[in-house]
Amino acid sequence: GEIPAMQTVTLIPGDGIGPEISSAVVKIFQAANAPVSWEERNVTAIKGPGGRWMIPPDAKESMDRSKIGLKGPLKTPIAAGHPSMNLLLRKTFDLYANVRPCISIEGYKTPYTDVDLVTIRENTEGEYSGIEHQIVDGVVQSIKLITENASRRIAEYAFEYARNNQRSSVTAVHKANIMRMSDGLFLRKCREVAESYKDIKFTEMYLDTVCLNMVQDPTQFDVLVMPNLYGDILSDLCAGLIGGLGVTPSGNIGANGVAIFESVHGTAPDIAGLDLANPTALLLSGVMMLRHMGLHDHAHKIQKACFDTIREKKVLTKDLGGNSKCSEFTADICRRVQDLD
Amino acid sequence: GEIPAMQTVTLIPGDGIGPEISSAVVKIFQAANAPVSWEERNVTAIKGPGGRWMIPPDAKESMDRSKIGLKGPLKTPIAAGHPSMNLLLRKTFDLYANVRPCISIEGYKTPYTDVDLVTIRENTEGEYSGIEHQIVDGVVQSIKLITENASRRIAEYAFEYARNNQRSSVTAVHKANIMRMSDGLFLRKCREVAESYKDIKFTEMYLDTVCLNMVQDPTQFDVLVMPNLYGDILSDLCAGLIGGLGVTPSGNIGANGVAIFESVHGTAPDIAGLDLANPTALLLSGVMMLRHMGLHDHAHKIQKACFDTIREKKVLTKDLGGNSKCSEFTADICRRVQDLD
Ligand SMILES: CC(C)[C@H](C(=O)O)[C@@H](O)C(=O)O
Ligand SMILES: CC(C)[C@H](C(=O)O)[C@@H](O)C(=O)O
Repeated sequence: GEIPAMQTVTLIPGDGIGPEISSAVVKIFQAANAPVSWEERNVTAIKGPGGRWMIPPDAKESMDRSKIGLKGPLKTPIAAGHPSMNLLLRKTFDLYANVRPCISIEGYKTPYTDVDLVTIRENTEGEYSGIEHQIVDGVVQSIKLITENASRRIAEYAFEYARNNQRSSVTAVHKANIMRMSDGLFLRKCREVAESYKDIKFTEMYLDTVCLNMVQDPTQFDVLVMPNLYGDILSDLCAGLIGGLGVTPSGNIGANGVAIFESVHGTAPDIAGLDLANPTALLLSGVMMLRHMGLHDHAHKIQKACFDTIREKKVLTKDLGGNSKCSEFTADICRRVQDLD
Repeated sequence: GEIPAMQTVTLIPGDGIGPEISSAVVKIFQAANAPVSWEERNVTAIKGPGGRWMIPPDAKESMDRSKIGLKGPLKTPIAAGHPSMNLLLRKTFDLYANVRPCISIEGYKTPYTDVDLVTIRENTEGEYSGIEHQIVDGVVQSIKLITENASRRIAEYAFEYARNNQRSSVTAVHKANIMRMSDGLFLRKCREVAESYKDIKFTEMYLDTVCLNMVQDPTQFDVLVMPNLYGDILSDLCAGLIGGLGVTPSGNIGANGVAIFESVHGTAPDIAGLDLANPTALLLSGVMMLRHMGLHDHAHKIQKACFDTIREKKVLTKDLGGNSKCSEFTADICRRVQDLD
């Protein structure tokens, strides 16, 4: 076939186990002949003019050019006084949609099977506005901000996603019975957008009811769309259903193709550098990235190799129930990728 | 033994299936010779002086005297324009602690076994403050209000509960990494209170992490304490782990012994009046109430009879997997209660 043009991707290896799992992903991409050239960048908090926290200019500059990033875990010491770099990245590039497909992995035992859903989280406002005040001594308020524009935008994203990914329903998750104005506005926008997607079934459900139904029977859900905090909660809950953050990919999507894909597990400092880490979450985030870039064959090949390795249970990292090193797990996937050629 | 003095309890049967399951509970209490005399009251929204919504004066007056209520489900039509009566009851009597024990029921199949935890939810403020504004067209804010007093009070309740119920740990659930001031205040109060309970282990966990860990292994949790909305979510999630709202009891506790125990499922209008409803959640809420009143023997007897009926699987309502009527299920529990004498 044709040799596709190389596309540049900004690679943010991150902290702790980040560098190991990043180099595992780079190796597997290489084995798959993915036409990706990596531009590695460090992301640490720096203080810009006016004392505002920002990401390093060379990382910003790379992302501005490449538009696409793959990112390992970043440590977020509360004590450091700066905001979470994960949040700052989402904000800097206006990555308004956090997308997490949660799909049961064959051969990896969990209390649930046949989970196949996607959480779509509004990523820019809501409870994450950062606006807080002390009213009087001992009385504090946090402001949850919901806008018409951000609500419409995420609703549109969810329906477009459903349509483009052969999914049949979108559920808006809310607490408009309690937060009548804010969640009410979010819900109204979802309803309005739903009008333009008659091919997709639209339902609404209270967040508490979703959580209850989710643990009773997750197979009833398809695409779920929700404000920021609810997405934070539900996406982790759903990750738990299929095996945790070690196997769950994530994408943060902005306008005009800009996107950062990331593993959402921690930096695991206790095992960093010991060749014990599991690169699956970052690898599957890379697979999401390849699809986003239109490289569906490479995505398919890598995903299949990864799932085959897990299903066969011979070469697994410790957290997956095996005894293998990160490098051995990686090599097994590379071998399978090459066999698929 | 001594014949205990009768204690008055305000019974709020509620809507839909409420009257049926209430009369089931009354029958079972009678079979157990529980020294309770019921004062039945209706609770519907009425408009008081100044247009404020309130509960009917005769219900208020009964609760003021009896201090203890047992309540079935109340319908909360958003369209009616009044607040949820459930919330109004909590507010009227300052029932600041919502307590939900989630304990696996032997013989009732769910994906989890050996769940044995209690969620303790701050019931008066947080995201439920009801304060919302439109800033400009298309921009809305909801205010989450956290106070030092309410946070200390609920933390103290949680640790007292742990100590009095032979539980060994309390976990504070929060998002203080995001809502640094409000959840930060809540968390600080939990830490302070923990200092006075050296016999109880204290831990802290992000809400998203709790949700993830909860669906992976709920047995790691014991007592959990949290702000209002997080409690709304987690208590339903945990109910889902043990079989849903049809089998999960709940208590709303205030100062000076005031408390309302309630089933938190819906009114199930589709089966109302058909003798098909499952009274278990209300009955187990009644069992919590008996313990609260110091009637431990009666509580034990009724709980054992109910669990025996469920474990034996011969006489079960439809939602529990059987074919029996509510009245048959009730009669089976009554028979067992009497056999236990
Ligand atoms: C790291 C943290 C600030 C973040 C969040 O709360 O959104 C994380 O939990 C996530 O879901 O990406
Ligand atoms: C009925 C509703 C207002 C209520 C809530 O949101 O608190 C319910 O979900 C609950 O948990 O008791």
